[in-house]
Amino acid sequence: MSDLPAQVDIHEEGPREGFQIEPGPIPTADKIALIEALAETGLRHIQICSFVNPRLVPGWADAEAVAGGFRPRPGVQYAALWFNENGLNRALAFRDRLTMAGSISLAASDAFSRKNLNRGHAENLEAMRKQTAVHLAAGLPVTRIGVMAAFGCNYQGDISPAQVVRTVADGLAVAEEAGVAITDVSLADTMGWATPIRIERGIGAVRERWPELRIGLHLHDTRGLAVANAHAGLKLGVTKFDSTVGGLGGCPFAGQKGAAGNICTEELVLLCEEMGIATGVDLDALIEVGRLAERIVGHQLPSELLRAGSLDAFRRKAA
Amino acid sequence: MSDLPAQVDIHEEGPREGFQIEPGPIPTADKIALIEALAETGLRHIQICSFVNPRLVPGWADAEAVAGGFRPRPGVQYAALWFNENGLNRALAFRDRLTMAGSISLAASDAFSRKNLNRGHAENLEAMRKQTAVHLAAGLPVTRIGVMAAFGCNYQGDISPAQVVRTVADGLAVAEEAGVAITDVSLADTMGWATPIRIERGIGAVRERWPELRIGLHLHDTRGLAVANAHAGLKLGVTKFDSTVGGLGGCPFAGQKGAAGNICTEELVLLCEEMGIATGVDLDALIEVGRLAERIVGHQLPSELLRAGSLDAFRRKAA
Repeated sequence: MSDLPAQVDIHEEGPREGFQIEPGPIPTADKIALIEALAETGLRHIQICSFVNPRLVPGWADAEAVAGGFRPRPGVQYAALWFNENGLNRALAFRDRLTMAGSISLAASDAFSRKNLNRGHAENLEAMRKQTAVHLAAGLPVTRIGVMAAFGCNYQGDISPAQVVRTVADGLAVAEEAGVAITDVSLADTMGWATPIRIERGIGAVRERWPELRIGLHLHDTRGLAVANAHAGLKLGVTKFDSTVGGLGGCPFAGQKGAAGNICTEELVLLCEEMGIATGVDLDALIEVGRLAERIVGHQLPSELLRAGSLDAFRRKAA
Repeated sequence: MSDLPAQVDIHEEGPREGFQIEPGPIPTADKIALIEALAETGLRHIQICSFVNPRLVPGWADAEAVAGGFRPRPGVQYAALWFNENGLNRALAFRDRLTMAGSISLAASDAFSRKNLNRGHAENLEAMRKQTAVHLAAGLPVTRIGVMAAFGCNYQGDISPAQVVRTVADGLAVAEEAGVAITDVSLADTMGWATPIRIERGIGAVRERWPELRIGLHLHDTRGLAVANAHAGLKLGVTKFDSTVGGLGGCPFAGQKGAAGNICTEELVLLCEEMGIATGVDLDALIEVGRLAERIVGHQLPSELLRAGSLDAFRRKAA
């Protein structure tokens, strides 16, 4: 048990991941209310919106109103997502409110790259070369490689650890060309193919080659294994996780309507805190925010913990 | 990874656990349809009904009709539950169709024992002494101790591994008095307090004292950690798990309305099969049965896998 980390960084992506997939329009004020409530729970990093084409993702037509409208809380980092120069420029209008950084985003599956980004891996590498130059020109740091579909793909099937290593190597080559140093690699289980063993093997392969890189996990609970996969990551000393309150979200391009979204922040916090790993998050407060998220989207979210409540709540009653 | 077992025994409890908690009456024919469909998936042990007081558990007023009505499939064991001599006698009328065995059922939490059984631990031990005599008189084997609330309790708070060991010791004393040899201990996370570390410590404590006992896990997904807990058990070589298709169920006396039920059979099967642990179950067939269970109860069940589908289904498409 001594290999468990003492603390972890949780990147909350509920607002950004969650609202892009909901069928109905979510009022801007509700999005802001959720962001502000999340910032009161002890979370230190919140991804608040996506500067994407409103024709493709109508749920984020109000990205500007959200990014400009929320009241920032000191000590909390607010992030946003973009996929091209137009999105970046929209985000840069809020650079005084946002923590902005570039990222080299790749997919370990060529088939998923084509479905999700409309370009294969080679074309995507070329796009990332250009995007890295644009990020650097805008004065943004580029220190992170993201690998989507790192544990399997609905369109391509199993993804080997060797394929993940090749993808990271390709990303590092892009970074090297641009003269930037990568410190972080995020492995994303975009379509819910990970198992604890695949987590161990995937992380093991990347770490063996690049022991200096900090590895983060972006897990989806598509098949109910996200918490088990997070635990496998914790046992390997992973200290950075993306998650969404209530389990909001799900990838709109993964070809699985109705599939569960990201790992629930509150279940990840419960797992960590009950095992002595500090998250900085007040779990009871976070559960209340999860219930707020359910009221906002108007339906039950996947999180079981929202219905059961924290263990501390029962401990206080039992004492 | 070499400590993972080569195969596991899954005890399906969906029919029994699931139908006791549903608010509406479930037609007998639907219960039988689910049992017969489960038996076609490769599951080898199915708990089909509960011989309980129909005034307390109206959902099982038709236990006789179910136990007498299903068409047994050769090679499949069908089990039932009872809590007293009256229930046992009702079950014995079907002993040619049921695999019947006695069990010494205890709770590691005195408070839960009072809430669930209306008697404290000491009174419950006395009741188990009598029940063991009754089971032996009926010619049933008594080889198993069940420990409810083995990892924590909504009414008592945390439960220490030492408390679990004391509870097992008390059960072994009852068995010894009766002259029977216990081979199996089932640790139940009745109210969803387990974490991977608590699983490791609880099993470790029991195993250290009685290395010869086979330990089984009965896990609830109350707070989303069931699959992670099952994985922790698998890594310790646990080869016996109770589960319910779709995640049917939940304890009616746990004081948590709306909380999730047992670990989903299909998510447990996915976890095992994807890590090379044989279950004997056809996962795609089981997912179809989970969808049948949703149609029968008339609402969505907690299983994420029912919506996402198996990985093999995607592998076939991708190939």
